[in-house]
Amino acid sequence: MSATAVRAPSGSTLSSADSASLFAPCDSFLRRHVGPSEEEVARMLETLGFASLEALIQSAVPAGIRLQRPLDLPAAKGEHETLIELRELVVANNVFKSYLGQGYHHCITPPVIQRNILENPGWYTAYTPYQAEIAQGRLEALLNFQTMVADLTGMAIANASMLDEATAAAEAMAMCFAIRKTASARAFFVSNQSHLQTIAVLWTRAKPLGIEIRVGDHNDTALDDVFGAIVQYPGTGGEICDFGEFVERVHAIGGLTVFAADILALTLLKPPAEFDADVVVGSTQRFGVPLGFGGPHAAYFATRDEFKRHMPGRLVGVSHDVEGRPAYRLSLQTREQHIRREKATSNICTAQVLLAVIAGMFAVYHGPEGLRRIARRVHFFTKLLAAGLTRLGYEISSEPFFDTVRVNLGSERAGEILEIAVRHRINLRAFDEHTICIALDESVDDLADLFRVFNGGRDPEFDARELAESVESQVDERFSRRSDFLTHPVFNKHHTETEMLRYIRRLEAKDLSLTTSMIPLGSCTMKLNATSEMIPVTWRHVGILHPFAPLEQTRGYQELFAQLEDWLAEITGFASISLQPNAGSQGEYAGLLAIREFHASHGEAHRTVCLIPQSAHGTNPASAAMAGFRVVPVRCVSEGDIDLADLREKAALHHADLACLMVTYPSTHGVFEETIREVCETIHAHGGQVYMDGANMNAQVGLCRPGDFGADVCHLNLHKTFCIPHGGGGPGVGPIGVAAHLAPFLPHPAGSAGQVSAAPWGSASILVIPWVYIRMMGGAGLAHATAVAILNANYIARRLETCFPVLYRGKTGLVAHECILDLRRWKAAGIEVEDVAKRLMDYGFHAPTVSWPVPGTMMIEPTESESQEELDRFCEAMISIAVEMSEVESGAADRQNNVLKNAPHTALAITAADWTHPYSRERAAFPAPWTRQHKFWPAVGRIDSVYGDRNLVCSCPPMDAWE
Amino acid sequence: MSATAVRAPSGSTLSSADSASLFAPCDSFLRRHVGPSEEEVARMLETLGFASLEALIQSAVPAGIRLQRPLDLPAAKGEHETLIELRELVVANNVFKSYLGQGYHHCITPPVIQRNILENPGWYTAYTPYQAEIAQGRLEALLNFQTMVADLTGMAIANASMLDEATAAAEAMAMCFAIRKTASARAFFVSNQSHLQTIAVLWTRAKPLGIEIRVGDHNDTALDDVFGAIVQYPGTGGEICDFGEFVERVHAIGGLTVFAADILALTLLKPPAEFDADVVVGSTQRFGVPLGFGGPHAAYFATRDEFKRHMPGRLVGVSHDVEGRPAYRLSLQTREQHIRREKATSNICTAQVLLAVIAGMFAVYHGPEGLRRIARRVHFFTKLLAAGLTRLGYEISSEPFFDTVRVNLGSERAGEILEIAVRHRINLRAFDEHTICIALDESVDDLADLFRVFNGGRDPEFDARELAESVESQVDERFSRRSDFLTHPVFNKHHTETEMLRYIRRLEAKDLSLTTSMIPLGSCTMKLNATSEMIPVTWRHVGILHPFAPLEQTRGYQELFAQLEDWLAEITGFASISLQPNAGSQGEYAGLLAIREFHASHGEAHRTVCLIPQSAHGTNPASAAMAGFRVVPVRCVSEGDIDLADLREKAALHHADLACLMVTYPSTHGVFEETIREVCETIHAHGGQVYMDGANMNAQVGLCRPGDFGADVCHLNLHKTFCIPHGGGGPGVGPIGVAAHLAPFLPHPAGSAGQVSAAPWGSASILVIPWVYIRMMGGAGLAHATAVAILNANYIARRLETCFPVLYRGKTGLVAHECILDLRRWKAAGIEVEDVAKRLMDYGFHAPTVSWPVPGTMMIEPTESESQEELDRFCEAMISIAVEMSEVESGAADRQNNVLKNAPHTALAITAADWTHPYSRERAAFPAPWTRQHKFWPAVGRIDSVYGDRNLVCSCPPMDAWE
Repeated sequence: MSATAVRAPSGSTLSSADSASLFAPCDSFLRRHVGPSEEEVARMLETLGFASLEALIQSAVPAGIRLQRPLDLPAAKGEHETLIELRELVVANNVFKSYLGQGYHHCITPPVIQRNILENPGWYTAYTPYQAEIAQGRLEALLNFQTMVADLTGMAIANASMLDEATAAAEAMAMCFAIRKTASARAFFVSNQSHLQTIAVLWTRAKPLGIEIRVGDHNDTALDDVFGAIVQYPGTGGEICDFGEFVERVHAIGGLTVFAADILALTLLKPPAEFDADVVVGSTQRFGVPLGFGGPHAAYFATRDEFKRHMPGRLVGVSHDVEGRPAYRLSLQTREQHIRREKATSNICTAQVLLAVIAGMFAVYHGPEGLRRIARRVHFFTKLLAAGLTRLGYEISSEPFFDTVRVNLGSERAGEILEIAVRHRINLRAFDEHTICIALDESVDDLADLFRVFNGGRDPEFDARELAESVESQVDERFSRRSDFLTHPVFNKHHTETEMLRYIRRLEAKDLSLTTSMIPLGSCTMKLNATSEMIPVTWRHVGILHPFAPLEQTRGYQELFAQLEDWLAEITGFASISLQPNAGSQGEYAGLLAIREFHASHGEAHRTVCLIPQSAHGTNPASAAMAGFRVVPVRCVSEGDIDLADLREKAALHHADLACLMVTYPSTHGVFEETIREVCETIHAHGGQVYMDGANMNAQVGLCRPGDFGADVCHLNLHKTFCIPHGGGGPGVGPIGVAAHLAPFLPHPAGSAGQVSAAPWGSASILVIPWVYIRMMGGAGLAHATAVAILNANYIARRLETCFPVLYRGKTGLVAHECILDLRRWKAAGIEVEDVAKRLMDYGFHAPTVSWPVPGTMMIEPTESESQEELDRFCEAMISIAVEMSEVESGAADRQNNVLKNAPHTALAITAADWTHPYSRERAAFPAPWTRQHKFWPAVGRIDSVYGDRNLVCSCPPMDAWE
Repeated sequence: MSATAVRAPSGSTLSSADSASLFAPCDSFLRRHVGPSEEEVARMLETLGFASLEALIQSAVPAGIRLQRPLDLPAAKGEHETLIELRELVVANNVFKSYLGQGYHHCITPPVIQRNILENPGWYTAYTPYQAEIAQGRLEALLNFQTMVADLTGMAIANASMLDEATAAAEAMAMCFAIRKTASARAFFVSNQSHLQTIAVLWTRAKPLGIEIRVGDHNDTALDDVFGAIVQYPGTGGEICDFGEFVERVHAIGGLTVFAADILALTLLKPPAEFDADVVVGSTQRFGVPLGFGGPHAAYFATRDEFKRHMPGRLVGVSHDVEGRPAYRLSLQTREQHIRREKATSNICTAQVLLAVIAGMFAVYHGPEGLRRIARRVHFFTKLLAAGLTRLGYEISSEPFFDTVRVNLGSERAGEILEIAVRHRINLRAFDEHTICIALDESVDDLADLFRVFNGGRDPEFDARELAESVESQVDERFSRRSDFLTHPVFNKHHTETEMLRYIRRLEAKDLSLTTSMIPLGSCTMKLNATSEMIPVTWRHVGILHPFAPLEQTRGYQELFAQLEDWLAEITGFASISLQPNAGSQGEYAGLLAIREFHASHGEAHRTVCLIPQSAHGTNPASAAMAGFRVVPVRCVSEGDIDLADLREKAALHHADLACLMVTYPSTHGVFEETIREVCETIHAHGGQVYMDGANMNAQVGLCRPGDFGADVCHLNLHKTFCIPHGGGGPGVGPIGVAAHLAPFLPHPAGSAGQVSAAPWGSASILVIPWVYIRMMGGAGLAHATAVAILNANYIARRLETCFPVLYRGKTGLVAHECILDLRRWKAAGIEVEDVAKRLMDYGFHAPTVSWPVPGTMMIEPTESESQEELDRFCEAMISIAVEMSEVESGAADRQNNVLKNAPHTALAITAADWTHPYSRERAAFPAPWTRQHKFWPAVGRIDSVYGDRNLVCSCPPMDAWE
């Protein structure tokens, strides 16, 4: 047995009584994470005809790429001890009071939302709501979010949601660019009042697209060649400007205007729509989402109705179900960027659903009155602060401002004040050498500390309450909002904790998450998101840090990043890791940018051809387009593998300008291609780089490493392979690993070109999840998990192959960690793969990936976390559906009025007095024995997608819609 | 308007724009806690014909008892700030590593259980499972607990559950006493190896019953006059004894034997049943329940089949539903002690359901193999410890031991070692001046610290792994367990986190909790259990303290207790508070003991007559019996009030030996009796004391105070009035307040006679809940909440009175905080109040209290936390049911086959191919519009109670029962 032989580490063999094993902790994690018991593993291996897990892996994974040693990671620790270790690590973070602002504010997550959404697996383990009938809960929550954004910005339509404010601004720029009227206009104006991180991300995004970024004062910049402009509202230094005239100027030359607006300020300020804005973007972090040292948070994107089909990101809309009841769904999916492939202008797919849900719920809980009061209170305290500082002799930036003031220190240096502040455990922002910026937030309670800091550390002779008499709490009348918002009942009735709790729970009950059953989504790796991994996310020392807090206050985070980077480097075989990309798509984009810069650094900026196999994820060509590459497709052979001959031909053809190949491994066809080394060598031989899509990394960890067999860069989906939960459609995290020669071209930390996300370490707070996972699994545990993932996939393939042919297999007849089932045969009987997906709901299952990467098929990825019992249950459902389909095929069942076409069956449909179907109610609703023990009811019947797209409604429908 | 006038404190009036109000925090709690909005309050007042809340209260509460000033409590704080204040308070607790043992052990709460049960309102807000059809989840969990206890002890039957090990031992003693064969046998032998707190609680319990406690060595004590005996297994000093001969000796004289056994040790040791034990009790704390500085934890009670009808506490059993499917329910309720009133031998009602569920789930998650490994590991480390200490030159208690060793220090003093230990942040137990006791637990990982302590603070020259070679991990063969346990599938299939999570969630989905709808239980005050109140319960500094940790390490707790006692004293008007009683029933008992001791201290020990109105809670006479009092009932007049003439007569008749009156206020009839002062004066005039049952305190807080109008002692149900969640049937907390003259007779802290609970401050960890509640509400907020509770009850009475006569009202026609609806009229149509209770399930509601305190009625208590919208929804359900009943009455509907008699309707019943009812499926399942939006399905149909009692099955049924 080789050094890498896969077997369960000894901690999990409980039956062994030898005393040595008793030193292992009581709470070894491996046996909690891996679904099949030892007996089940043995039984499944027997079914497949292998004597051991190692034998299976030797057969499944090409010998040429097997890692010949165990991963060099710290030995696995018990769950309890791991959390103790992590706590000791993160308490090195100093949680100071932050007045740093710049688009990030401390806020109060309502406890009912924290516990019942952020800390609730019913919400955080759900998948992206593609199967809308069993996702009505989060779809409603997202519609609330969209309504909230549309109301507050005043725009016609808003999406759900964006990765952060800076990338949302970049998306807005790209959209303006794509729809510009004058092809020669290639400049984008950026107000110098914009947040620095926004400017940095705009720079990065502009460069490969050939856009010229023009930073300046919006009052005195020439706008020639400008296709669009962005302003910050209020500005990063707190200023509120009247942009009316500016917008007119931009419009006059055919340009579009983007506002980056503070969502809380909009409750009091004239909304951007009233300045005639074309796009409004911003962060919704301060609506109840913890700072988390930079993320994850949801950003928003709102625009005019006429641009809705150009909007990036996901859009929830209202349609109706088969019985005419309102039903929510993702709208205009054909518009989605990953479907448009190389024609895309964006690559965003995973959004920040969980965080958008929280921000929307924050608005539901507070309602318009409550939000207005929060804003008015913050503004009032800001005025008190200004009054107090004035009394202390400082010159304050003049009104209007909302929550941020600049303090002119005169001859005093900012550094000195900052030092006093730090001694008071307060962080302030040095705006320039003699100016300090202070941004207040919802949690402000007392200004005494601040006054003390600015009074040389001594208590001043006045207090805030005294100052109140001289201060007016209203905002400047010129900017005062007069339009209503959040008038829909949903924002006006859940204001007690009891009502809010029930509302959240009612929505949760409509959604099928991992708490109910397996979600066997191919390519999405819906594995266990263990509680021990999730618990630290809401620890104070993780959650309450500002992304721009001084580095010496974030030593805990720095150490955590360093360890995680080391571990991921070891797992992937790369030299360097960047944790900044806050989604898989961001990782792709950052990786391609690194390749682009690498070529440019050699004087080969002309290398822009990007080869992509036909089977690739749609985000690959979309990312390539964003990186300014030209996509050249590579064919696949009939067995699904890359057509090596075609690859060689294309590589040779583009020898001179070949930038890279983007390749997924194991392939999106679920197969370990034997030729991967050869593929990589071919590209390298022609001067290209190999970008590996890490979506399928769950089939590799501990068994083989992209860095070893030819990849130059690879992104990881920490939300797939490394246990960050899908959150109902985000957050995702997509760090990239690169070989040493690419290391200089990784995204830089904050404030410089090359930055792809707003925050220096992206979604920092959820990086504790992979840290805990890897720490509890150890190298042997990770390899074992990978082997079981492969075992589970092959077991499903074997059990289902007689009913559903397995479309692609490796040379040895095995699949990798997922398998594609061919359902095209039943098309002749009028049955679409979608019918099977919907019928699975009646059995209590979420459908696998449907019609991707091959139309008419289903791609199943069970992951290592599902037990054989659960796999069997799923297989029995599929076999039972095959029988149902055969009945239609044979004519025994009606071609239209059958259990498949009418699926899913709701409780209301089942109890209807008129039962007009030729099959029984029981068969419709209780098609398998387990459904009698525990039935998950779809909230609505089959949804009419076409109607929803034709009659686009993307904010909360009136209450009488349900009557 | 008087000084106590009730109105919402200004923090909740958000519409006011004046700047002063802007100083109030953004997250004022009052408006989150109180259900009705200001508009709803106004509308409800209008319905009732009152101009203001104060006018309503003036009319509802007798003027003579109104508190004439606001409560003197700290001003309300926002939620966020309150948690910051509490955190600052509790970090004064030092979390040391504890090896103190004595029945309390650190343990690892599996995170999946912590997050999904202990921190999940779906579990913690549920009520006691009286309505079994909508409580199958926790009933199954409790059946698991019973099965676990029966299996591990080897006994035939086990209950669910007891308050703590010491009270369980006292209950066992009382049961043995009640069923003793020789009436003259009044002595109870207590092994001197018993935990001290157990001996203390036995002393307390024995005294009023005239039992003589005889503490001694079980090997050489004469057993004459002994009706029973208790031994500790293993002993408090760690010793494991062969009790075979001792049990024979006790049996020989007709006595019964009680074993107090360590639940974890039983996985390795011969179970008590194999020693022929009659009763086995113990704590299940170490099965995953945090120490919590003493509680709450669940204890167990197991016995022989022949004693099942004498067993105290609740018993879950298996019956079947109307369709013959297995269904769980509380069995033998007629046997329950509060029903037996003065004939009771126990007063236990609220058990520790939430904690029993956790302990049972711990066994489900680990399974028999996992539990055995934990025990073997603990035992192995204990042997390593003994070997190491021996090597360091100490003399160790000889084997057999399980997890606890005594170290003979020779001439060295225990105090010196303890001091070194404390410097290492370790707590050890001084067994005597020259002996130290060390108890290991599941979390033990490394013995280096301990060796260092015993090596004078220096590292020893060996480590644990070295010692392992010389150590045998098996327990002594004489005591080695040979019998199987936990063989049922439920303990053998949920061992991965994914499976466990789904199992917990499946059970949760079967239970209707406050997360679904209001639970309008009269007398139970099912108000909001706010997240901010619950969050600190699982903080480290709250959860991980041993109850016998040195006081100087628990300063945070001490300060919290002092503040809470002050606040509760101010709220009740008493001089002193004891927080020790860990259930309402315990409070009653402790209060009566105080009265008893008070009389005795005056040489009036003969005062033993306890007057109790007929309308009293059944626990009142049960508690009186436990306190050795003689119960004399007092009649009620037809309007429901206490018959003052009868009271005077009885008081006069028993003038010489009157101990006290037990009275509930407002009465259990839901009325503020005008005569309460007169009632108290009458009792005092005859030398008696007034015990006030605080069950209805939610109608008094901030409006009137028991201590002001004549009560001498009163218990509080912190789980009713002060927001501790019901946990599905516990934990409860029942502190008592007493007037100054009774203060010397309050339960003493640990280790002395007078102690009623095992831990010095009872269920210490959940005392954070009322602390947070009171801190966030402030005095004005509490009074406002009380007023709204009264408003809500009167609103329901008004809306329903035309359909359901309100049985009792106060002089002004108002009810207090609850109301009794008379349903007896429909009996003539064959409709029982139970039918209405079950039909309410079809509407998605939990029934109010049924047939108590008056048969054929329903008692409704809405609490202040329910909005008018929810009250209206409930009223509409009741009115709709009245219509359904009228149809039966008029003959329009069948007398037997109708929606009421067949309720609740399950999804399976609704979809049955054969629909044999004269009404439609829709009407059965969707009788109200809201059920179409969100339907809560009962898990089983109407349960056959009689069958279950006749065929008692109290452990998990075989899997084929469901086929």
